[in-house]
Amino acid sequence: MDYQEYKEYEDYFRKLIEEKQLKELKSCITELNVVDIAEIIEDLDDKDMLLIFRMLPKEISAEVFSHMERYNQVRIVNSITEPELNSIVDELYFDDMIDLLEEVPANVVTKVLANAPVNERKLINEFLRYPEDSAGSIMTIEYVVFKPDMSVRDAMSHIKEIGMDKETIYTCYVENEYKMLIGFVSLRTLVISDEDKKISDIMIDDVVCVNTLDDREDVADKFKKYGFIALPVVDGEYRLCGIITFDDIMDVVEEEATEDFHRMAAINPSEHAYLDQSTWELAKNRIPWLLVLMISATLTSGIIENYNYIIAQFLILTAFIPMITDTGGNSGSQSSTVIIRALATGEINLSDAFKVVFKEIRVALICGGILSFVNFMRMIFVSKVEFGISLLVSLTMLVTVVLSKFLGAALPMLAKKINIDPAIMASAVITTIIDSVVLIIYFNLAVRLLPII
Amino acid sequence: MDYQEYKEYEDYFRKLIEEKQLKELKSCITELNVVDIAEIIEDLDDKDMLLIFRMLPKEISAEVFSHMERYNQVRIVNSITEPELNSIVDELYFDDMIDLLEEVPANVVTKVLANAPVNERKLINEFLRYPEDSAGSIMTIEYVVFKPDMSVRDAMSHIKEIGMDKETIYTCYVENEYKMLIGFVSLRTLVISDEDKKISDIMIDDVVCVNTLDDREDVADKFKKYGFIALPVVDGEYRLCGIITFDDIMDVVEEEATEDFHRMAAINPSEHAYLDQSTWELAKNRIPWLLVLMISATLTSGIIENYNYIIAQFLILTAFIPMITDTGGNSGSQSSTVIIRALATGEINLSDAFKVVFKEIRVALICGGILSFVNFMRMIFVSKVEFGISLLVSLTMLVTVVLSKFLGAALPMLAKKINIDPAIMASAVITTIIDSVVLIIYFNLAVRLLPII
Repeated sequence: MDYQEYKEYEDYFRKLIEEKQLKELKSCITELNVVDIAEIIEDLDDKDMLLIFRMLPKEISAEVFSHMERYNQVRIVNSITEPELNSIVDELYFDDMIDLLEEVPANVVTKVLANAPVNERKLINEFLRYPEDSAGSIMTIEYVVFKPDMSVRDAMSHIKEIGMDKETIYTCYVENEYKMLIGFVSLRTLVISDEDKKISDIMIDDVVCVNTLDDREDVADKFKKYGFIALPVVDGEYRLCGIITFDDIMDVVEEEATEDFHRMAAINPSEHAYLDQSTWELAKNRIPWLLVLMISATLTSGIIENYNYIIAQFLILTAFIPMITDTGGNSGSQSSTVIIRALATGEINLSDAFKVVFKEIRVALICGGILSFVNFMRMIFVSKVEFGISLLVSLTMLVTVVLSKFLGAALPMLAKKINIDPAIMASAVITTIIDSVVLIIYFNLAVRLLPII
Repeated sequence: MDYQEYKEYEDYFRKLIEEKQLKELKSCITELNVVDIAEIIEDLDDKDMLLIFRMLPKEISAEVFSHMERYNQVRIVNSITEPELNSIVDELYFDDMIDLLEEVPANVVTKVLANAPVNERKLINEFLRYPEDSAGSIMTIEYVVFKPDMSVRDAMSHIKEIGMDKETIYTCYVENEYKMLIGFVSLRTLVISDEDKKISDIMIDDVVCVNTLDDREDVADKFKKYGFIALPVVDGEYRLCGIITFDDIMDVVEEEATEDFHRMAAINPSEHAYLDQSTWELAKNRIPWLLVLMISATLTSGIIENYNYIIAQFLILTAFIPMITDTGGNSGSQSSTVIIRALATGEINLSDAFKVVFKEIRVALICGGILSFVNFMRMIFVSKVEFGISLLVSLTMLVTVVLSKFLGAALPMLAKKINIDPAIMASAVITTIIDSVVLIIYFNLAVRLLPII
């Protein structure tokens, strides 16, 4: 459904509510996909949203709820009765419930926990304790488990019984008597296997799994590499604790990329959506780097003051400083972006460091050569600047491009080597370093090329 | 498996080959996941790689092949016999075969096509004609189709017969007599449904699908939104042409993010991996923007020359230019990055434009205020610069931050509005614009604040 269709549905639903055609409304809604229902009712006012939400069958309402934006979930939680809240929480998949509890106000958490059975409350508390961004914090507990000596027939009837309440039934896991993970079976294999075979005969025992404390980025990498629908999560004793499904990983991949985008733009990443963050929160994530970079940039003031005697004699030299530093920043940020991203996707790794840096230097020689040539021609023939100064600026340009591409490639690699996030070594940091270095080169070349007294 | 384990396997395999323990080798390999086999043999030399590759059962060898890097696939294609090549191509999923044909040398394509049956050859040619980056170009044809009047029992035995050759059997599609897509059934529903029910009774007819010509980015968005395992692809007459599975979309999400990273760093995106690109190719994608930005930056030279009389009197003003322009670039790139990324992930859209720009201005006032205050204090008390100049630089700093954050938010929105990729309006472009504007403000404030003659 696209934006236009959503609007049409919204108007249609408002009309039905106004005309009290609730039966028609109900039958129309239950035809729709849960994701679409969520999108449509989110744009209605509190009263209409709640009316439709209450109209949904219990299983569907929980699913619709889990697809709504966080602040709309809070709108609902604040308007429904306690029994209604409990019945939704009951129906939510465990990972969605944990997500919810992590973000709603404390009084709601207390309410939910008060109504949960003791063992579930224990489990909830355990899940809430997993470190942020760990595999444990995004896993769910609704998976299917077989014993190795079950027959395919028994396994299939087990699935028929409980399949509807599990997040996925397409990959089922096999545990031994000590609850340790010893294999997995895909539903595909189950369906085409002889019904009398034992699970232990058809299961695959080379299980790819992750640990509860693994970083979710590593989990995402495993998904990308192996293409599985779900991955099992085990604890230190190799006992199955939960599973992570591919649809949750799609979000992780996107969020991790967003984090890198922000970090590379000198922003401390936030886990909240842009519109959910207050002005103050946004500013708080941006000021530290701006301050650090501004203060580092005062180094350039010192350098320029130091060479004031050159500027006093050739005032025109000032005119080219922004162009040179900008070009340095741009070519450095090209290299650092390419390298940081390639490191993040695993396209290159540390063992490629020399090859990569060497390649960037060759690229820099081509780019720098062309830029410097074009600049020289422009200065001589278009701006009619005198030869010595044109040569000075063009030479500085060449050195700037080569140096900035070298640093742009080498610094992220170096960061990775010493276990710092390479994304730090992006445009802003490179530019600040390049500026100082380039100014020193510019003035030193000037002393040699121009008749400075 | 991690890097260390791969190395150990490689060494072990080399040793087994040397000692001619081929039986042991075969039994060890076939225990492994196809992705891991691919990783391990890619690092062996041609002879060993080929020896192990030929040892694999036919179905497995095709899967291993599809997980290898392109240049290793070419290594294999160049070393095996024509019948061997045909048998691999036969076993490949259709989308992997098309991917391969799009990249291998023309003589290999001719060889493959010559050996394909006539109707398959027609289909291959059709697929090769889908526009790059379209849904058609990434879909595959191995899906399961039911007729609406089939019983669940018949459907299940159909799956048992053909299920192993299909890319996914977890979502099956229903076509009417005109081959039009009218619904889908998940294997989960099939498994738990009464065997005598008809497909038309249990299928869901609210099908989310995409068109062959849709952009793959839109396809990825639908996957992220609905969380399906597969999406059907239809033509203009709503006939089912293929399916796209979630694992292929993971790559799309990552590639699209990489494209944005590159575009934002003023690089024309390439579809080839970094290490696969020649130095010249890399340079070719970077030079155009560097040239455009360098030539635009000459505007700053003109502005500075224009105000030379101010610099002549207050040489020290030059010293603060890089710091001011850098800070402008950094704060502008913070805003533009946040906005471009939020537009790309759909977190904000054009209807939020005013809210967003207004928010960025408020953030800018906070950031600018703090930066400008810190700078003023530093200049007065640390660097002992005179009051007038400290005030001038600090005021310019404030205006710079506000202006750059305004442009950083407004320009990507504007680009989106007029259907240009917002990623163009990133750091480099913003910096170039900001630099000129800020210099004009700097000198105009100077005329007012300093005793210029």
